[in-house]
Amino acid sequence: MTRYRATLAYDGTGYHGFQRQAAEHEPTVQGDVERALTRLGQPNITVTGSGRTDAGVHAIGQVIAFNAEWRHGLDDLQRALNATLPADIAMLELQEAAADFHPRYDAVSREYIYTIYNAPVRHPLKRMHALHVAEPLDVATMNAAAAMLVGQHDFAAFGSPTAGEVTVRRMLRAQVSAEPPIIRVELEASGFLYRMVRSIVGTLLAVGRGSLTPDEFRAVLESRDRSLAEAASPPQGLCLTRVSY
Amino acid sequence: MTRYRATLAYDGTGYHGFQRQAAEHEPTVQGDVERALTRLGQPNITVTGSGRTDAGVHAIGQVIAFNAEWRHGLDDLQRALNATLPADIAMLELQEAAADFHPRYDAVSREYIYTIYNAPVRHPLKRMHALHVAEPLDVATMNAAAAMLVGQHDFAAFGSPTAGEVTVRRMLRAQVSAEPPIIRVELEASGFLYRMVRSIVGTLLAVGRGSLTPDEFRAVLESRDRSLAEAASPPQGLCLTRVSY
Repeated sequence: MTRYRATLAYDGTGYHGFQRQAAEHEPTVQGDVERALTRLGQPNITVTGSGRTDAGVHAIGQVIAFNAEWRHGLDDLQRALNATLPADIAMLELQEAAADFHPRYDAVSREYIYTIYNAPVRHPLKRMHALHVAEPLDVATMNAAAAMLVGQHDFAAFGSPTAGEVTVRRMLRAQVSAEPPIIRVELEASGFLYRMVRSIVGTLLAVGRGSLTPDEFRAVLESRDRSLAEAASPPQGLCLTRVSY
Repeated sequence: MTRYRATLAYDGTGYHGFQRQAAEHEPTVQGDVERALTRLGQPNITVTGSGRTDAGVHAIGQVIAFNAEWRHGLDDLQRALNATLPADIAMLELQEAAADFHPRYDAVSREYIYTIYNAPVRHPLKRMHALHVAEPLDVATMNAAAAMLVGQHDFAAFGSPTAGEVTVRRMLRAQVSAEPPIIRVELEASGFLYRMVRSIVGTLLAVGRGSLTPDEFRAVLESRDRSLAEAASPPQGLCLTRVSY
């Protein structure tokens, strides 16, 4: 038995998120990767991810691990999986890993990028991978607000913890930049609470529209009160870009 | 009655091309724009395009014209259409035009860009808007071959003329450039024969793989023999980017 570590890219549009559901008929990325392994003669394998991504959220850097017995080379397994996986999932990298490698517990940071298409008229070719915002957004002010997230904070205002979960995380980088008409929100942290990136982006959008000042944004963070943050922004703009170990 | 000229962007993935079909149930861009006009109280309007795009081909610069009676402002009509059109079609610009403006006959040139994703593993987030080619392509040699297309030529080798159609066109620009892993083929011409861009790209791919030299590419062009060119490349990489008047 060998432990494998792989990097996945996927278009989340057609999936109910990364993680296999109790309702087996819901398409999930984990379910499709496990099904591909079964079709390659590797049944009953459980694939572990670095974390869940929600329904409709994309990835170019999701890291997974699984144990398998494969008699041929690594390249051969990667090619076979890419030939078997559906078109909206690809395995970008595959390597052998230590027997105790765990993609979630061993990760030291995750990076997400949220993409906004900021123009008066929506763009049909970007609708699956960016949020369209018609009103002009003040990127410099959004970036000033985002900078307040850096460091160790209790992010309870921006996330829904599961019962008993600690809500303190370390934000390593939080930047908002523009290449008009594209705006990118890049966040790298030790970890993220459920819906945390999208809640932060929803609240940064209020800053960009001028309805919240950077100081008010900081007050939301410090309140640890989920009801003070804006609603989570939609999933199609979000992409898990990198997990570091 | 006012004549309007508009620029459309669309994701061609779900369409049987731009032009309305005899079989009315096939979704077409023209059909959807006419349906949106009907829903805005403008029935029985025929929308004319600068040219057809095939099933699965995208546009960010398709130009259309139509006559309508609209009592409110231009901005108001554009907003109403964008609110009525499906998510995969958007009207980027709308202006009044001369009563005799014809988007096809008045066009002096069209520009198409064909996008290739050139990397060993396919990219799920680019699969709708680029052709995946796994083998490395020699971009400089492809560009040298493409340069031979510039000028006035009989392009019969690369197109399927309709009965009696003249197959001479003037190619204004033909460039192949790379921003790895993306390769772009940009072609601007007075006009294009049916499937001409995709036939040229299919044959340039043979050059990029080393199975055809630039001189052999030139011989294909000069042969005016459709059977000597490669098969047309798939539609998802192709986008009509600009029509000039």
